[in-house]
Parts: sequence; structure tokens; C-alpha cells
Amino acid sequence: MKTYLECIPCFVRHALDVGKITGADVKIQEQLMREVLVSLSKIDMSKPPPYTAKHIHSLIRKITNNPDPYKEIKIRHNKLAIKIYPKLKSMVMNSQDPLNTAMRLAMAGNVIDLGVKNNITEQEIENSISQVVSHPIVGDFQLLKKQIKNSKNILYLADNAGEIVFDKIFIEEIGPEKITLAVRGGPIINDATIYDAEFCNLDKIVNVIDNGADAPGTILEECKQEFLNIFWNSDLIIAKGQGNFESLSNVKHNIFFLFKAKCNVIANHANVQVGSYVLTQPLNEDKGD
Amino acid sequence: MKTYLECIPCFVRHALDVGKITGADVKIQEQLMREVLVSLSKIDMSKPPPYTAKHIHSLIRKITNNPDPYKEIKIRHNKLAIKIYPKLKSMVMNSQDPLNTAMRLAMAGNVIDLGVKNNITEQEIENSISQVVSHPIVGDFQLLKKQIKNSKNILYLADNAGEIVFDKIFIEEIGPEKITLAVRGGPIINDATIYDAEFCNLDKIVNVIDNGADAPGTILEECKQEFLNIFWNSDLIIAKGQGNFESLSNVKHNIFFLFKAKCNVIANHANVQVGSYVLTQPLNEDKGD
Repeated sequence: MKTYLECIPCFVRHALDVGKITGADVKIQEQLMREVLVSLSKIDMSKPPPYTAKHIHSLIRKITNNPDPYKEIKIRHNKLAIKIYPKLKSMVMNSQDPLNTAMRLAMAGNVIDLGVKNNITEQEIENSISQVVSHPIVGDFQLLKKQIKNSKNILYLADNAGEIVFDKIFIEEIGPEKITLAVRGGPIINDATIYDAEFCNLDKIVNVIDNGADAPGTILEECKQEFLNIFWNSDLIIAKGQGNFESLSNVKHNIFFLFKAKCNVIANHANVQVGSYVLTQPLNEDKGD
Repeated sequence: MKTYLECIPCFVRHALDVGKITGADVKIQEQLMREVLVSLSKIDMSKPPPYTAKHIHSLIRKITNNPDPYKEIKIRHNKLAIKIYPKLKSMVMNSQDPLNTAMRLAMAGNVIDLGVKNNITEQEIENSISQVVSHPIVGDFQLLKKQIKNSKNILYLADNAGEIVFDKIFIEEIGPEKITLAVRGGPIINDATIYDAEFCNLDKIVNVIDNGADAPGTILEECKQEFLNIFWNSDLIIAKGQGNFESLSNVKHNIFFLFKAKCNVIANHANVQVGSYVLTQPLNEDKGD
């Protein structure tokens, strides 16, 4: 997916938010905003938004001298999700279709997206859980179910810290033995890294690798060879979150994207309503990308 | 008031909105966004936001080759307000305190602010009217009433097209014979100009001048001498809208600002809650400006 003009104000607002999160002096925040504006004025609109987000975060890290502005927030979200885990597990065990419920909960976890929103409360996560369990999903769950059954090597692309605990529930239902879980190669926004996967004990149940890149998505040309080998040799890829959809929506492979469409740009691109829980595959038409 | 970092994403979103309103080709809109980003990267944060908005709109006019992107919207808002006028007039005539009701209606008209929001519906105006009639006003109405009574020369600084019909109601209660109504010197966003004042027949009841400048506020150093003479010789100035507050909040003169605080930055600067209907005077402390 290309970058749309509508993404630009969102990048600027996000840079402002991150500047505040770093706690940097207001003069440093001002310098950051000025440099982000210059950088955005040269943006390559043909690249997906995570490409630009990566460059903005590289500026943020340099200017604020903070290698991981979301470190504490990520730990908080991991802890919050771990606390909810037994309840989620019990929902799955008591449901008529555990795989479907587990997939829905993985989607519910996708509300923990600080690229779109600045913070998330326990109440918002609880609301998301209640909503997604009864809400219609846009997409073909039966097709995914069949593909999961027939696949021997599944690559699961994680999205955010905290959210990965919700993914754990889904992974446990799919069968962890045939899954590789991929996280980002370095800190970027609140995206899950190896640290988060280990914090949430994902590494105890599934093979975890990092993709070697620090974009808030999966930009294949920036990922390491080991990851790419697994990517292209997988029978099925389950990709969580807007960032993975943005960066892989035109890649011809057996990918199922699972995310909540949180903004107009993504919703239009995926041809759904804002707020929808979406299960979709790579787009056939290129939508002008 | 200075420009806050929080204003920057708002400027960018506004530029995007105006680009769309002009109906320019998406390539032109992209060029516009790039030039606005470069311009904002050099922003003078010590100046009030209308100063920057003026420069952004100058870029918009140049790049889109459109001298007045809001022309049709302004006409629509003028017509909408003229349609509501008899109802407003009747509300004032049937109220226990006509001056107070008229002032509240003038505040209600300030929801027609397309610098903050992209469009306004008849329903939103109706809601604003119902709300402001019963809503507590932050400020000292009795002091304003006393000042109005004691003043011989009142300068009324208008804000937006459409809104000026609501101002007309207030002006009629104050006494048009002692009022000069000032509008902007050229098209800027949906701010009222001489054209709008004449369209709404304000010129039939009150002396109307333009301030000689095309900022969405009153930047004194850019206003023409004739306006400045009236400004400094007035016993009392009634200034409508956020833009006039932003540009005059530190000017030492007998000014009463009337506006709805529509964003966090303004609300914090005026020390009120977002959404408040505010009647305030120039701030004593300079709040770091």
C-alpha cells in the first residue's frame, strides 16, 4: 500500500505524541517537530506508511537521545495483557468454536496500537474484548480455518507488545508446533520485539525469530535473509495489525491479515468501514499503488 | 498568544482539508502538502497561530491557483444563518434579558469555524443554539453590559461568514449607532469579509470597515492605519472567535473576547475547559509568550 496524503497529518501528530512521551525538553521537542516536518516534505508516497514511520522514529531516537521511548509503556501493556490472559483462556475453553473465539481475541488485542492512539486503558481493552466476541468479522474465517488445518509451516507476524499475549491464545489453538512467530528486529513504537515475546513467555511455546528490521510493519526489502527464507517457505502467513497489512497488502503470497481498521485510510484501502474487525488476504487490484 | 507545538498537526490537517476543498488534482495537493511542511518547519513559534495560517493560505492560493477556496461554503453559511435569523430574533425578543440572550447567540454562531472543523451542518448550528442558551458562560457578563452602556465607540471584530448574522442580532441589541464592525481585508478560510457583511445586510445597520489584512485573526502590525485609528480610539472592543483571541490576547486594551473554546491549546491558554463558551479579557500574565 502506498502512503496517502491523509497519512501526513497523522505522522505529524504521532511525532508530537512521541516527543512528549520521551519527556524531552520542549526545545528538543520543537527541534524534533521541525526535523520531522522537513523529512515529511520529502516523503516517498509510493512506499507504505511504515517505511516513513521508521524514518521518523529514527529521527526521534537521534534527537531525543532515547533508544526506546515506548519501553515502559510496552512493559505496562505486556503486564496488563498477562493479567487478562486467564480470562481470555477461559473464554476460549468455554466457547463453541475455540479457534474462532481465539482468532477474535487476537483481533481484540489489536486495539493496543499506539501508532494510532497515544495510550490504551484496561477498560478499552475490556470493551474491545466484549465487542469482538459478538461483532461480525469482515472476512472468510472458514477459509482461514481450512488453510490452518492444511498448513505444515505457518509464519505468524506479531504486531504490538501486550497484543502478543492475545496472539498466544490464538497460537495455542492453531497448534504452536507448526508456527514460527516473528517480531520486529528493533524497538519501534510499541511493536513487539524479542524482549516482549520472552517477557510474555511466547518463546516457551513457539519458535520466535525477529525479522531483522525496525519498521512498524514488514518491509521485505529491509528484513534479514533468515526471516525471508521462512517467509517465502511458509504455507500460510497470519499477519497481525495495520502495519503488516500496509506493508504486505500487495505481496503475492498466502497471507491472512487480521486487524482492526482504525483509520479512514486503512478502511478505504481494505474496502471496509472504520472500526471493522478484518480478516483479509492480499489485494488483487493495486489501487493505484 | 504564541504558537504551541500542538498547533502544528492541526495546521497540517487544515492544509490537507483546504487542498481537498479546492478540488485541485491530487498531484497539486501533494505539492501543496510538501510546501506547507517545509514552511511549517521554519515556523516562528513566538507569533500567534493566525500569523502562520495566513502564510499557509497564501501558499494554498498560489499552488492551487484558487483565490478563495471557501467562497461557496461561505455563501452557503451566510444563507443558512439568514434563514435562522427570524428564529434568533424571536428568541431575543421573548427573553427576559435580551442583551444576554443576544450575546449567547453570538457565541453560538462561533461554531461556524472551519479552521477547526471542515464543515458545519444546520443541525450542529441548531444544537449550538440550544446549548448556549442554557449553558453557563465562563466570564463576567455584567461587566460587559456595564461597559457597553458606558461606551460611545465600540469596535466589533467579526469572525466568520454565517456567524456575522448571529453577530447582527447582538449588534442590534447593543445599539448599532455606536458600533463599527470590522471584517478581514481579504479572503482567508471562511472568515467574514466586506462581501459577507454586505451579503448579510450588516452594512445597512452598522458602519463596516475591513482591517486591511488577510490573517484569520487581528494581527495589528499587518492592519491598515484607518483600522488601527478606530481600534485604539474605541472605548470598548468586542472580539469574536478564537483567531481574534489568539492574536489579541496579550494586547493591553479594553477588549472582551467572545468565543467557544474548540481546542485544547486555546482552552489551556484561556484557562477553561474545551467546549466552554468564553467571555474574557486580555490576559494579565504572558504565559510564556
